[in-house]
Amino acid sequence: MPSIFTKIIKGEIPCHKVAEDDDHIAFLDINPNAKGHTLCVPKKEVDKIWDMEKEEYLKLMDFSYKVAQAIESSVSCERVGMTVIGLEVPHVHVHLIPLNSMQNATFQHKVSLQTEEFEEIAQRIGEHLR
Amino acid sequence: MPSIFTKIIKGEIPCHKVAEDDDHIAFLDINPNAKGHTLCVPKKEVDKIWDMEKEEYLKLMDFSYKVAQAIESSVSCERVGMTVIGLEVPHVHVHLIPLNSMQNATFQHKVSLQTEEFEEIAQRIGEHLR
Repeated sequence: MPSIFTKIIKGEIPCHKVAEDDDHIAFLDINPNAKGHTLCVPKKEVDKIWDMEKEEYLKLMDFSYKVAQAIESSVSCERVGMTVIGLEVPHVHVHLIPLNSMQNATFQHKVSLQTEEFEEIAQRIGEHLR
Repeated sequence: MPSIFTKIIKGEIPCHKVAEDDDHIAFLDINPNAKGHTLCVPKKEVDKIWDMEKEEYLKLMDFSYKVAQAIESSVSCERVGMTVIGLEVPHVHVHLIPLNSMQNATFQHKVSLQTEEFEEIAQRIGEHLR
């Protein structure tokens, strides 16, 4: 069965898209740790990041680098953290999270955003992509 | 003032070393989320990961890939997570953490290990490096 991220990639489930290239997509986490929390996902469905071919993994890291710099330029935060866990959705995803304190990094505290706020922040990050 | 990681790299502070190349070092986190929790650190002292030159960043990611696969081969866990936060030590470090549950990823729960356990696990991971 395709993962929820594959359904998003295919457009079967909507998302607040931030960036896309041939092999990757970035969209806002719908249950964010902080405003601007973004997921970078390879279109090829692989469960564990360390099972990716090294070349594919490095392309994902390259894509994440560009998106992280755009977040840093457009979202107020102390720095942008990166986390890969994968215990819930078995499709590699890189969390990029605007951090102001450790609380933003623990996945124990979530923020609630309105649809317009998601739309505004996704557009703002997208505009900062080089 | 040099960071605590620079002091470790220079050998002024001891560590349980897992791997090293010209530009990076990997050693066990002294206050681990889980047994086998390892830090991958570039020898060049930069505070924020997204301020690294892209080439240097991708080399760090490449180094982390090798170390993560060695951890996965040598430590019992569901998968190996990766996290970059950096709110405490202003010198880029990639956390590689053996995960069995979300608790291992939150940085809120720590495990206590004896010196011999640190030594044994560092050696075991090192032996699995390709």
